[in-house]
This record gives sequence, structure tokens and C-alpha cells, in this order.
Amino acid sequence: MTESVELVLNAAGRRVPTRVNGKDQTPFQGVGAYRPQGAKQAPPIRSCVDYPPSGDKRMPSLEAALRACGLRDGMVISSHHHLRNGDLVAAMALETAARMGARDLMWFPSASFPAQAVLIPLLESGHIHHIEGSMNGPLGDYCTRGKMRGMGVLRSHGGRWQAIQDGEVKIDIAVIAAPAADCFGNCNGAFGKSACGSLGFALADSIYADRVIVVTDNLVPFPCIPWQIYGNNVDFVVEVDSIGDPAQIVSGTTEITRSPDRLKIAQDTARFVRDAGLMRPGFSFQAGSGGTSLAFTAFLSEMMREAKVKARFVRGGSTRYLVEMLREGLTDYILDGQTFDLDAVRSIASDPRHVATSPFTSYNFHGKGNIASLVDVVVLGATEVDRHFNANVVTHSDGRLLHGIGGWQNCLTAGCTILAIPSFRDRIPIIVDEVTTLTGPGELIDVVVTERGIAINPRRQDLLDAVRTSDLPIRPIEEIQKEVEAICGGKPQKPARTDCPVAVVKWVDGTVLDTVWQVGCAAEHSAAPEG
Amino acid sequence: MTESVELVLNAAGRRVPTRVNGKDQTPFQGVGAYRPQGAKQAPPIRSCVDYPPSGDKRMPSLEAALRACGLRDGMVISSHHHLRNGDLVAAMALETAARMGARDLMWFPSASFPAQAVLIPLLESGHIHHIEGSMNGPLGDYCTRGKMRGMGVLRSHGGRWQAIQDGEVKIDIAVIAAPAADCFGNCNGAFGKSACGSLGFALADSIYADRVIVVTDNLVPFPCIPWQIYGNNVDFVVEVDSIGDPAQIVSGTTEITRSPDRLKIAQDTARFVRDAGLMRPGFSFQAGSGGTSLAFTAFLSEMMREAKVKARFVRGGSTRYLVEMLREGLTDYILDGQTFDLDAVRSIASDPRHVATSPFTSYNFHGKGNIASLVDVVVLGATEVDRHFNANVVTHSDGRLLHGIGGWQNCLTAGCTILAIPSFRDRIPIIVDEVTTLTGPGELIDVVVTERGIAINPRRQDLLDAVRTSDLPIRPIEEIQKEVEAICGGKPQKPARTDCPVAVVKWVDGTVLDTVWQVGCAAEHSAAPEG
Repeated sequence: MTESVELVLNAAGRRVPTRVNGKDQTPFQGVGAYRPQGAKQAPPIRSCVDYPPSGDKRMPSLEAALRACGLRDGMVISSHHHLRNGDLVAAMALETAARMGARDLMWFPSASFPAQAVLIPLLESGHIHHIEGSMNGPLGDYCTRGKMRGMGVLRSHGGRWQAIQDGEVKIDIAVIAAPAADCFGNCNGAFGKSACGSLGFALADSIYADRVIVVTDNLVPFPCIPWQIYGNNVDFVVEVDSIGDPAQIVSGTTEITRSPDRLKIAQDTARFVRDAGLMRPGFSFQAGSGGTSLAFTAFLSEMMREAKVKARFVRGGSTRYLVEMLREGLTDYILDGQTFDLDAVRSIASDPRHVATSPFTSYNFHGKGNIASLVDVVVLGATEVDRHFNANVVTHSDGRLLHGIGGWQNCLTAGCTILAIPSFRDRIPIIVDEVTTLTGPGELIDVVVTERGIAINPRRQDLLDAVRTSDLPIRPIEEIQKEVEAICGGKPQKPARTDCPVAVVKWVDGTVLDTVWQVGCAAEHSAAPEG
Repeated sequence: MTESVELVLNAAGRRVPTRVNGKDQTPFQGVGAYRPQGAKQAPPIRSCVDYPPSGDKRMPSLEAALRACGLRDGMVISSHHHLRNGDLVAAMALETAARMGARDLMWFPSASFPAQAVLIPLLESGHIHHIEGSMNGPLGDYCTRGKMRGMGVLRSHGGRWQAIQDGEVKIDIAVIAAPAADCFGNCNGAFGKSACGSLGFALADSIYADRVIVVTDNLVPFPCIPWQIYGNNVDFVVEVDSIGDPAQIVSGTTEITRSPDRLKIAQDTARFVRDAGLMRPGFSFQAGSGGTSLAFTAFLSEMMREAKVKARFVRGGSTRYLVEMLREGLTDYILDGQTFDLDAVRSIASDPRHVATSPFTSYNFHGKGNIASLVDVVVLGATEVDRHFNANVVTHSDGRLLHGIGGWQNCLTAGCTILAIPSFRDRIPIIVDEVTTLTGPGELIDVVVTERGIAINPRRQDLLDAVRTSDLPIRPIEEIQKEVEAICGGKPQKPARTDCPVAVVKWVDGTVLDTVWQVGCAAEHSAAPEG
């Protein structure tokens, strides 16, 4: 890199760059230590004078819309990931921009997926300068190998809202894939052949971006209700044949794990929640859409049924397991950030108790509170956890960046944060001396449930007390670690990484929590421009 | 006034002040002529660090909440008017602030009502400096008599959003009366003993104000759904016994006019809409909640039924007449800014096709379009209209300011704008040579329907052509004027007004359209501070 990178130790003891992609950074100062200054991002004032009184904002093509947005070199183009691995629109927009000759673009997706590896040639050719956003799979691997010209910047869902709202990232053109839209730009994800449920990840983009293009394959007459995105924030609407591959957008159904170990982890997690007294009438919880999380939800539902306990709300990512809870009356509401299967998509489209949320309501740390800290129990995964309960979700122990943060960091403020994880994967221990990449500070992680026992963070004496008389397999984390190391033949190897930073992990407040280091040869890594 | 007021002629030929309440003004430049510059108002960045992780933002009293908001002299305190003449919260907040010793406050209601004349003593005592917002009845009369220290500023619903969004008015503390709220501050108007339907008028306040207090008499467990106002924008929640007088908040039922003249106006308006070809399949209309408007809606419904024509949407203010249309299938949606009777309140709380709107979606002229210009037909009232179709809705011909603008100005961009008005009231002609106060430029007003005939603006040759062969009583406006003057014994008297401005009428783009002049003695009028 021609930009010399100054590294400092932050409050977590991690070496982090003081400047990323031409912008000064604040190193992590500790949980709750940093206080933001100043005012929110202020988008330009527009006027109805410049928009058609008929409300018809359609443009004949994405190219025409990008031209009308004033596309030029170096712009920040954003997209959302509600269509997951089925999304066709982000690639369509960036490939169109490249065809139009734009260079050095910053792609700012809410997350990227393996299918979007088709964009690697645009990174190679210089049309895309770098990506800020979760990079799942091949793009993360590409980044870790030092091949991206700028640094990757990994943010949580809430951190992305925070960065946009606080003006850290100014979006020039937001391109919003919409399963249903009207010609005014009102749109939602609830209906249509490419239905994905909510569009919450695109909400910040629609509010704060300079220009907003809605791309749809399902134009409906005004008004498109519900208007998850307001047409009043939209500049142009483009119709295309298809915005995504339905099979890759949502699962037909989501399935519970069949692994006996994972089932045990899920069951022990549910038992812990029950026996620690967290499963109270009116409580709330959040679990993901992975096989273990689904099994946890099913086990907990059964325990709630037996104990006649009803939740006030459960948080999505939603699946048919949450939808069944809602229908059965085991919860009053689903507060939902994304919908993972067809049952969930149908439910959010038709049941007013299944409420779409956004990173603003759920996760933004620079708001007047957020929902995440009101959740009683959250069950999460991790790629690694250390003896101080610090956890990693973005890299593997070989140093490769293969996962995004999602809402993971944001959820850590729940009343009780539980990592439900196997103690080893592919004979590599998950409980380590020091995590490869720090994504969540240990002081926010309360419980680690593995198939070999449940470790409670010593900071949570209340939880230790609550389960003292239970028959749950409570054990010190160090004891589980030793047992696993004996099975796996020792501690995991240190990753063979260079001293060259290729990406940073932001904390929920916008400070730099940790660095992802290049793995392998550095030769192809070149300069980041001042931006 | 010690501030000398410079007056200039604006593009409508009206004398307007160049400075109001210490702020420079842009005179009206013509419809669609002014283009805003710069960026939107940017509220301060907050942090979850400063809000309780439990989400419980309750304060023991309004006084405690105002103190926590840093109440001090000269602040701008805002309120909404969804509780109409039944609202108790605005007075409660201002009287509390006065008791706490705050002086020179600017009260910024979305509208004020006769019951709020209880605040006149606070204007007299100097606790309230002046009011910017619609002043219906006694407060408007008080202003017209030159007794308010600052100038009144009248804005449309859309103009109020525009002024807040554009930073023309910076709200220090928004006080939001909420018929249902949770302790996090999520709230709505749909449920509770003080239910009023929507809370759209408070949305801008919640987004842009420095501090936001929610006051409720119906605290529900988190989450309060629907969250018309997001708790993420709220600082404090205060519980009180009662936020309003239900009998004054909504009518039990709204009633059609029984006046034969008004019924004729309503019927001729509906016939015009039908016979001019505006009542097409998929069309849209907006009419108010007054007796004539309700009769129009009833007549038009009958014509739609006969012709088997279905609207795509109708705009509220909603009443049981619109609700019946929705239930009967005469419209796909109600897009609703406020709910006027109990049937409408029940409908918006339970029917997803009855959609709450806000001044942002409906009326903000400084957005990327708004809904108002997508409406095919709007039926409005007026206190006066001149031969050039210029209209007045705020003053009477005696010069007294007695009405707010509401959404009236914003609606003028509809496909066909119809004023449905009697040709005279109390033997005073309504059609005049020159309106007392210009509120809507004639080029935007297409049709005037009176009991003595229908006048079409000559600019609308298309409408003249459309009804050429109909049996509608189409007449030149001058002919109706002459006939009415003959009946009333001449033109109305010019108001006995001074040369001292007491209020200004803003156009939808924030420019100054006209001035309201003091009526009677000027002695009590004192200085406006620089602000």
C-alpha cells in the first residue's frame, strides 16, 4: 500500500489503523466509552418542482437512471441484501455503471453473498475500488488475500445505519431491489414473485442517500402498500424482468439441525433459559435461522407450552417456527428484521402482529435507545470464543474473512447473551486463547453453551446463582477448553498472516474494534486513494 | 414594533415583510419558481449510552421531563393537533413550562383550537412570545388585534414539515400527546380512551426536534404497535390521567349538511366530477369532513355505485362515509392524514387498507414528489375567492384571522381542484374583487362550485371542453359575482385594517405569500426579539 498505515493499540488491546480508505478513524475506547459529537447526515433539500406531478418516476433502463443520478467516478453505490444469494440487482447496477465507464466506485452493500463473486472482475478492472460491507464467502476471501485496492470495512446492521446516519459514509446512489413497487417509488418486500419480506436494510439508504433508484420486477398501481420504503425519498423507478432468483431469496422451508451434538446444544440452551428464570411471562427472545437456533426455538416453544408462558415478543430473522408461535399464541408479536422462509414471508404480508423492523428501530446505537437492549435473551453463534468470552464471527482460525457481522454485535446488549456453539469444528477447537478477530467484547457475552457443557461468564454472578441448584452441565470455560484441546490434539494453529491490514471491524459506535490481516502474498495490494 | 418591518411586493403583488420574528424571508416568487438550496435540518447524534438499556424512559412528571430536556427561555415547544379541540397536553406543557419560569417561548403547534384560548394569559404574561401555526378562532382573533409580541406564521401541513425539515424552524422540545404509548416512547393514536387515529402531524417533530417527550394516558407494554412514532426518536415518556376530552377529540359521528343550498353545491360538485370524466376506474379523490364535503362524498359514492366505478384510493381526513366506501369495495385504500369520527378511528386501527399518512408522504413540497399531486380530484372550501380564482381560507372579509390553512394549500396540486362554496355567507359575498388574504394562487384553482352555478378557470380549457355538452350550470365567475352582489346589496366592505403586519401566510415552498394586517388599535403591539 502506498498509503502508509499507522497502527495503534485500542482499548481492547488490538492493533488497528488510524486511517481507513482516506478517512481518520477512532480506535475502540471500550464498551460505552465513546460519545459521538455533532449532527446527523443532512441530505440535500429537494423540491417537487423537479419531480413529475403525475408521480411517475419510471426510467426506461438502469443506465438511464444512473445517468440521471449523475453517475461519476469514485461514487458510493449502495444495495441491500434482503434477496440474499438470489439478488441480481446489485450486480446489475454495478455492471451497468462499469459499462458506462465509471471507475473507482465504492460498493456499499448491507451484505454481499457468494453469488456476487461475479463482481470480482470489476474489482480487478478498477471499476469497483473496494467494498464496505459484510463479505460472505468468496469476496471475503478475495479481500483477505489482499487483492482489494481499498480496505474492507465490516459493520453490523446497526453500525451500518450509524455510519450512514452519522455521515461516516455518504451514499451517492442507492439502488434498491423491490419485490413490489409503484411508479412513485413506494415499495415493499412482502409481495411478488421475488418476495423477501421486509426491506428494512435499505431504509437508511432511502433516507440519507443523495439519489435513490428503485428496481422492481413487480410494478403495482399507486399506492404500493405497505410502503416499507417511501416513494417520497425515491428519485427513479426502473422495471426489469427479474430482480432475483426466488429459490435463492428465501428457503422453501427452514429445517432444524439433525446433528445429535447440535440438538444437545439447542436443548441445553433452552433448558438454561428456562431454569435460569429467563422464560418469564411477557419475556422476549431472539434466535437466528441456523439449524441450532431453530432447534432452540422449537425446544423453548415446547417448554413455554408446558409452563403456559407467553412471550410479549420474539425477534426475527423469522421462520415458520416463529410464525407457528405467533399463530399458536405463544407470543404477542414478531418484531422482524428479515424473513427467511416462505411461511415467514406470507406471515409478514398478512398478519399485523408480524411487524417489520429496521436497523434504526432494532440496532442503531446512535439513537435514543434501541430494541436490542430490550430483548431478554439472545442466542447467537460464533466462529471462535476465548476464555474471557471475547468472540469472533467474521474470520476462521486460518485468518480468512468469510462471514459478515449481521446484527450479531448489536444483539450483545440483550439481557442475557448466549453463544450456542460446538466446542470444535473440523477438529479445530472453537474455544481459544485469543480470538483471531475480535468482533464482540467478552464483557457483553454471558453464556457459552457447547455440547460439552455450559460456561457462564464470571461477571454474571446473578446467572451463576440462578442455576446453582439446577442439573445443567455448568462448567468453567477453561475446563471445556482443555477437554477440547485434548480431543483435537492441541490448540489451533496461529494463522499464517502478514502485518498488512486488509479490513477493519467496526464496533457499534463506529470506532475500530479490530483489524483483519492479509493472509498470503501482499504483492497485489495497492494504494487506497484519499476519499 | 421596535423592529422596523420592511415590506416588499412579491410575485403575487402582495406586500410582505422581508423579516419575520428575526429571520430573513424570501417573498413568494410564483408557483414553482423558488428552488431551495442546501441541506436538510440535521438533529444531534445521540447515543444509547445516554438512554436506559431497559428502554424505560418514563419520567415522574411533565415538569421533570421538561427539566431533563434543559428547558430555558426562548425555546421552541411544539405540539400536534390530532386531539383537536379536546387536547389537554399542549396547554399542560406550556403551563408547566411557565410555572417553571421559562419566558419568551415560541409555541409551534401543528394547529391550535378554541379551547387553547386558555393560553392567552401566558401570551399576556410573556411566558409565550408568539405562536407559529394555525390559529383557529380566539387565538387568531387575538393575533389579528395585534396583541401577540411576535408575528404569527401560518403554514400548511406540508409547509410545516418543509419548515422543520429545511431548518427554518428548529424545535427544541416536541411534546407529543399519545393515545397509546409504551415506556420506550413508541406510540400511536389508534387505541385508548383518547384515540384519535393517526399521529402523522407529530412525525416531523419526532424526527427533527432536539428533545421529544411523549405524554400518554394509556401506557401499554412494549411494543406499542403500530409505532406511528418511533420510540427511537423519543427522550422521555410521561404518564398523565388524561390527555384529552374524548367528546372533543373525535365526533361520535359526522353528519351530512341539511342545508338545501349546500346539498345542491355538493350534488353539482359530484355531477361535475362525473360528467367531466374525472370519475374514471382507478381514479382518486380527496374531500374534507365538513357537511358539504360529506354530502359530496355521499353523492359521488352513489354515482360510482351506479356506474360501477371503483377508486384506487381516497384521501382522508376520514369519516364513516369513506370507511363505508372502503368496506363496500368502492375504493382499494384510504390514505389518511387524520380521522374525524369513531368509525374512522376503528377502521384505521383494524383495517390494513386504511393507511395512516403523514405530511411527509402527502404534502411536503420539498421532497421527491408528494401524494397530493397524484390525487385526481380535490374538493375544498374557502372564505373568499376572487375573479382570478385566487382564494383565501384564513381570514374573513373583516380582516380577522380565524382559520388555519391545514392541508388546503398542499391539495391545490391535485389534477382538478374544486372549491365547493356558497356564493355568500351572512349576506356577505364570497366571490370578491380581491381576496383579503391570498392563501392559494388562482392558477392552481380549477373550478368554483356555488349554489348559483359552476365557474371553471379559463386556464382549464380541457375541463371547459369536457362539460360543454353537459347540462351542468357552467357560468363565468364574473356573472355569478354580479348576481350575488345584487342580492347582497353590493361588494363586501373593505376591512378596517392598519398597516401593521401581525402574521404572514407561507406558501408551500416556505416563501411569504401574503400578510395578515392588524385590525384595530396597534398600541399593545411590542417588539419581536432577534431569534
